[in-house]
Amino acid sequence: SRSINLAVIPGDGIGQEVVAEGLKVLSAVLPQDVKLETKEYDFGARRYHDTGETLTDADLDALKKHDAILLGAIGDPSVPSGVLERGFLLKLRFAFDHHVNLRPSKLLPGVATPLAGEPSIDFVVVREGTEGPYTGNGGTIRKGTEHEVATEVSVNTAFGVERVVRDAFARAQARPRKKLALIHKNNVLTFAGHLWTNIFNKVAAEFPEVTTEYMHVDAATIYLVTQPERFDVIVTDNLFGDIITDLAAAVSGGIGVAASGNINPSGEFPSMFEPVHGSAPDIAGQGKADPSATVLSVALLLRHLGYEAEAARIDEAVSADLAERTGKPARSTSEIGDALAVRVAG
Amino acid sequence: SRSINLAVIPGDGIGQEVVAEGLKVLSAVLPQDVKLETKEYDFGARRYHDTGETLTDADLDALKKHDAILLGAIGDPSVPSGVLERGFLLKLRFAFDHHVNLRPSKLLPGVATPLAGEPSIDFVVVREGTEGPYTGNGGTIRKGTEHEVATEVSVNTAFGVERVVRDAFARAQARPRKKLALIHKNNVLTFAGHLWTNIFNKVAAEFPEVTTEYMHVDAATIYLVTQPERFDVIVTDNLFGDIITDLAAAVSGGIGVAASGNINPSGEFPSMFEPVHGSAPDIAGQGKADPSATVLSVALLLRHLGYEAEAARIDEAVSADLAERTGKPARSTSEIGDALAVRVAG
Ligand SMILES: CC(C)[C@H](C(=O)O)[C@@H](O)C(=O)O
Ligand SMILES: CC(C)[C@H](C(=O)O)[C@@H](O)C(=O)O
Repeated sequence: SRSINLAVIPGDGIGQEVVAEGLKVLSAVLPQDVKLETKEYDFGARRYHDTGETLTDADLDALKKHDAILLGAIGDPSVPSGVLERGFLLKLRFAFDHHVNLRPSKLLPGVATPLAGEPSIDFVVVREGTEGPYTGNGGTIRKGTEHEVATEVSVNTAFGVERVVRDAFARAQARPRKKLALIHKNNVLTFAGHLWTNIFNKVAAEFPEVTTEYMHVDAATIYLVTQPERFDVIVTDNLFGDIITDLAAAVSGGIGVAASGNINPSGEFPSMFEPVHGSAPDIAGQGKADPSATVLSVALLLRHLGYEAEAARIDEAVSADLAERTGKPARSTSEIGDALAVRVAG
Repeated sequence: SRSINLAVIPGDGIGQEVVAEGLKVLSAVLPQDVKLETKEYDFGARRYHDTGETLTDADLDALKKHDAILLGAIGDPSVPSGVLERGFLLKLRFAFDHHVNLRPSKLLPGVATPLAGEPSIDFVVVREGTEGPYTGNGGTIRKGTEHEVATEVSVNTAFGVERVVRDAFARAQARPRKKLALIHKNNVLTFAGHLWTNIFNKVAAEFPEVTTEYMHVDAATIYLVTQPERFDVIVTDNLFGDIITDLAAAVSGGIGVAASGNINPSGEFPSMFEPVHGSAPDIAGQGKADPSATVLSVALLLRHLGYEAEAARIDEAVSADLAERTGKPARSTSEIGDALAVRVAG
């Protein structure tokens, strides 16, 4: 019989609330024969304040035993900027080699967009997750003096770039439009840019059916608001991916519906799924958060574990729920979760 | 009697066409007593193909003698990516210490925006121009092999950050709303991020009237499409500034009307003014380019040289011209230039 052994990290702020709904929908969608085991982990601001710890080796050993990880959000204004981001979120991505950061953007019917007209948006960003300016390489000298120098080093390897580029080509190949755009800034960041561009072109030769284009990251932000229908699959570096996926989320219905997967395709380590939004301390504990992004992240999780039919049922449920929102009074986090649970079970 | 000794660099593609109109409007707006001298320099793709040169020491010596520089656009597909960008555009910014890259965004009445509703957009980005990931620090080992490693080093100094942050605070102080946002990614790029944040907070203490906020660059892209009215002055690093100013241009009428100044506030070297758009080889030579961005760059140039009244006349002329476009047939580059020249003279 089948089973899913899930690590659950609600985290901070609205993370707690949205993860509860994600689990509700997960339980509702799974067939009877699938045994779902969940173990909750208390990471984030509270743990940091209590113990000074963010993510220990023992924590990593424990997490490693799970099939996948569902995360709500990590981060709180009471913790200095960077401590939880570098000490937990990025540490986990790097430790578990989550090199494919998958972020789909789809403007669903009935969903509001800040863009005029009725843009058609349906693309997925494959963001590299273990290299680039996110490595934490760099440092500071003469800190706090007028002679301070601070550096950040973007590290890019042929190994790291090729595997994520291959993943993106395979995804493009599997989609009807078969288009792949590389986004970088190779006219300025020439060292990293040439590595990315050369590998992209080399792998392209193996995927003759995929139509490719290259775009500078600054130009890409223009196209994301003027011609978002142009995109099918995008592959890009860690920092550019961070920036354009927030913009992509904004134009395709907001971060309330933006899901993401931090994927280790080899399966050597569990992959992690999380909404793109943060812990939103301003609305935490009030039942105001939209759990849709977390529920859609559960769909990505199921798809990753091979439960394609169940993933599709969740996608459809969220889509139907969103389509019926216009003109109705706002519902609470758990009301939306309840409605989605009913839909996926039905 | 007063005089302006201007270096003119039409450059590639539509650069030639738009600069001609910029000069037309400049001549029309200047009072009789101001002697305008211009000297044209042939930089860009043609010069590179003919001589292999992009910008020599002798070129820099010649340019140095001018009061200011007006540039059209540099770049052509026939030149490998990066050669003219690093070899000309960035070399000039660094050589002339253009550390204040000024990019205003204003949605003028009658101008189309990809955003729904009628957003009110009027802010200016102060982008650092001589540091960050643009320094060209970094390198490649084992090039072309499966073991290639390519790095890009973002270099940030207290000296470089403080001077541009001060410039931005002074600009915010001089504007009615007196708001300044620092945009960075200090939760991930902690070395550079802390330097920027600490200096920003230190200088803020000297400008108690200025309301400040901090925003991550990814979040900033969301606000630029959902709440652009929120921004007044933005200060940011070289790469983030590159990205958000293209997005800012897109939402406030497109790069057809986005002007920029590469400013050396001390006046030790001439400042350079250019449209944000590129050389657009696809429409070059057809009279299709909108010269408005270049004409608005001429206004920034005049303002920098102390001709405030003339700069304001140009801004008003462009604004009036744009307001009357709706429903009218498209005009050629020179027709728009002619119309603007008439308006500023009138
Ligand atoms: C919180 C932060 C570390 C993170 C990132 O920059 O990757 C977030 O912005 C995201 O996109 O998941
Ligand atoms: C062409 C390129 C070097 C330049 C930059 O990245 O600064 C351009 O994008 C700009 O914004 O002026």
